[in-house]
Amino acid sequence: MKEDIGDKLDIGDKLDIGDKLDFAKGLEDVVASTTSIGYLDGQLGKLVYRGYDIFDLADFSTFEETVYLLLYGKLPTRIELVTFKDKLVSYRPVMDEVMDRLDRLPCPCHPMSLLRSGISLMECIDETCQVAQGIEDKQEMGIKLIAQMPTLTAGIARILTNEQPVPPDPGLDHAANFLYMLTGERADPLAERVMDVSLILHADHGMNASTFSALVVAATLSDLHSAITSGISALKGPLHGGANEMVIRMLLKLHSEEEAENYADEVIAANKKIMGFGHRVYKTIDPRAKILQQYAEDLSNITGNQQLYRVARIIEKRGMEAYGKKGVCPNIDFYSGLVYHNLGIHTDMFTPIFAVSRTAGWVARILEYLENNRIFRPRAVYVGPKGLNYVPIDERD
Amino acid sequence: MKEDIGDKLDIGDKLDIGDKLDFAKGLEDVVASTTSIGYLDGQLGKLVYRGYDIFDLADFSTFEETVYLLLYGKLPTRIELVTFKDKLVSYRPVMDEVMDRLDRLPCPCHPMSLLRSGISLMECIDETCQVAQGIEDKQEMGIKLIAQMPTLTAGIARILTNEQPVPPDPGLDHAANFLYMLTGERADPLAERVMDVSLILHADHGMNASTFSALVVAATLSDLHSAITSGISALKGPLHGGANEMVIRMLLKLHSEEEAENYADEVIAANKKIMGFGHRVYKTIDPRAKILQQYAEDLSNITGNQQLYRVARIIEKRGMEAYGKKGVCPNIDFYSGLVYHNLGIHTDMFTPIFAVSRTAGWVARILEYLENNRIFRPRAVYVGPKGLNYVPIDERD
Repeated sequence: MKEDIGDKLDIGDKLDIGDKLDFAKGLEDVVASTTSIGYLDGQLGKLVYRGYDIFDLADFSTFEETVYLLLYGKLPTRIELVTFKDKLVSYRPVMDEVMDRLDRLPCPCHPMSLLRSGISLMECIDETCQVAQGIEDKQEMGIKLIAQMPTLTAGIARILTNEQPVPPDPGLDHAANFLYMLTGERADPLAERVMDVSLILHADHGMNASTFSALVVAATLSDLHSAITSGISALKGPLHGGANEMVIRMLLKLHSEEEAENYADEVIAANKKIMGFGHRVYKTIDPRAKILQQYAEDLSNITGNQQLYRVARIIEKRGMEAYGKKGVCPNIDFYSGLVYHNLGIHTDMFTPIFAVSRTAGWVARILEYLENNRIFRPRAVYVGPKGLNYVPIDERD
Repeated sequence: MKEDIGDKLDIGDKLDIGDKLDFAKGLEDVVASTTSIGYLDGQLGKLVYRGYDIFDLADFSTFEETVYLLLYGKLPTRIELVTFKDKLVSYRPVMDEVMDRLDRLPCPCHPMSLLRSGISLMECIDETCQVAQGIEDKQEMGIKLIAQMPTLTAGIARILTNEQPVPPDPGLDHAANFLYMLTGERADPLAERVMDVSLILHADHGMNASTFSALVVAATLSDLHSAITSGISALKGPLHGGANEMVIRMLLKLHSEEEAENYADEVIAANKKIMGFGHRVYKTIDPRAKILQQYAEDLSNITGNQQLYRVARIIEKRGMEAYGKKGVCPNIDFYSGLVYHNLGIHTDMFTPIFAVSRTAGWVARILEYLENNRIFRPRAVYVGPKGLNYVPIDERD
């Protein structure tokens, strides 16, 4: 949406912008950088990391391999992958001094608040953060952060349920270990594969608000933890992360297929949006939703919780009939919440899990941007009063 | 600087951008929003808050009055100011549960790291943060944050020198109380006025990187503490905050006027930038530098530390002779560091003090943006490979 804001503007920040001004609210369609990390094609419903289609990565790759791809721009050889996985494993532990400071809070708070605080505190407490950070240091720190995010997130989930954090198991892969640290028990192979795929699917997604806020911070040459803290801060917003929470809350309220049909019909009749439908970029079905829908079905067959899956399918069908032609289709949030719910994960943890995955994209894009860095300093056009005289306090009305 | 990035681009995020593309690196000159909070005119060396010139506010106003002006768009009546100041005083205390979590760290870290963590933890610990936040709640929370920033910052300064934090004195104004909490002793009237003016001068400054990162986070409808945490994260970067630290470190190395002349001549002969000279927007002397230069002189007369002031004046004179005609002039950082140094403040605390003041601008601009909110989602143009086939791991080279 372009907005014409009138023809008699005074100029903020800089002069000589002309006497008429269009600007794109939310910087929509404004190019902020180039990238070789990935892209999404909203018309074709395509998501690509480093040239590879997300369907291939979901079918054949692992989260560790995908992180390697995002960071280094190529798929690893076997030896490169083994070395990289060993490094991730070695970096997994999070210092007790961090976890202790997130524990015994006087009131309940959202796990995203604790995740933001935990990453911030980590930079205060881990002395390896305090060295001068060139791009190579930041790359190493980025790998460490990607490795630590599941440990921190699972630890926070345990703290919030008054359980002891579970230390990482070096024998398990990234996704399997994450599920293990959440529950203290080894998950079944399908659950581990679903988590692995979900982490792959959420790892990067163009210049979204959290990635952008992380870049804005990183471009000041602030430290990497500051940039990731900013990414988490943005992802916490209900307009960004958090949509999958709303989808599952909707689905859990519908106790039969009939209720689902009635609910969908009501929402459609009122011309309202169905939770988990529509996307600012995708104008067809989100490829990630397609992938997760199949896994949601597989999981529901195993857990026996088929009712919830059937409810979701009915909402999807009705929604597609009503809105599909307008390009308003299910997005990833429509099925990711269902998947996490079937994995036994508490709803409040959905957005933190998103952050666990997206940290890979944040780090990759920060490192790429810093190679050719420029601080972000857009302009705000001043539309307020000018030339006011200061009036002494007793003469004001 | 506009960059032509070639004529054969593939498009990231969105289609149909054309086959040739200019984009402004760092979003320079790109309009991100309108504002009635303030503007700077880089050609005329003018800074304006809500229509009032910074010279008038520095001469006649106080930080509390300036904050009221930034938030509400008008100067307060006497009764409004009294009420507002009472509210700020009542909001000053920071919970021990926050300070305790910033204390007894295993290694030294920058106070900006602790400030970022402290604001983030505050949102976890203060149960008033956990209510659903409409704009009115956020305005109240913003006033509380502006009131708490000096308490948190002074507490961090005390922790870093192994001293007990000093509780706020409700009988003192904002700037006077801040100096009192830093030292545990009442400062002299000139010192209190200099701090007050410095807080006024740093309170807002267009769409700089920290303000912008705070807006990007706030526009996701994340909480206010998340947005301020992001602002602090950006301000921590040496390309944004932190320049005044570098100025004072330069000045303290020059032990005589002769050394100052030689140093300036060397830097100029090498065609290098003098620390604290030049600004992305101001192409003449920064009005804030003019104001602080006079206070630096007054302070140096009182403290007897005239040598350092004379050194600064020589660097300024030589720098202006060499670069002034090109519009490269002293900016606020050139004198703010000198002023803080003469107030007996440790160099590491300069950027946190900047944050104490700038929180007012961050909050004012966030509240204004939310009135007509739109999430920021610019575009990154994909310039990497496309259509790659996934190769099984043992067939890769």
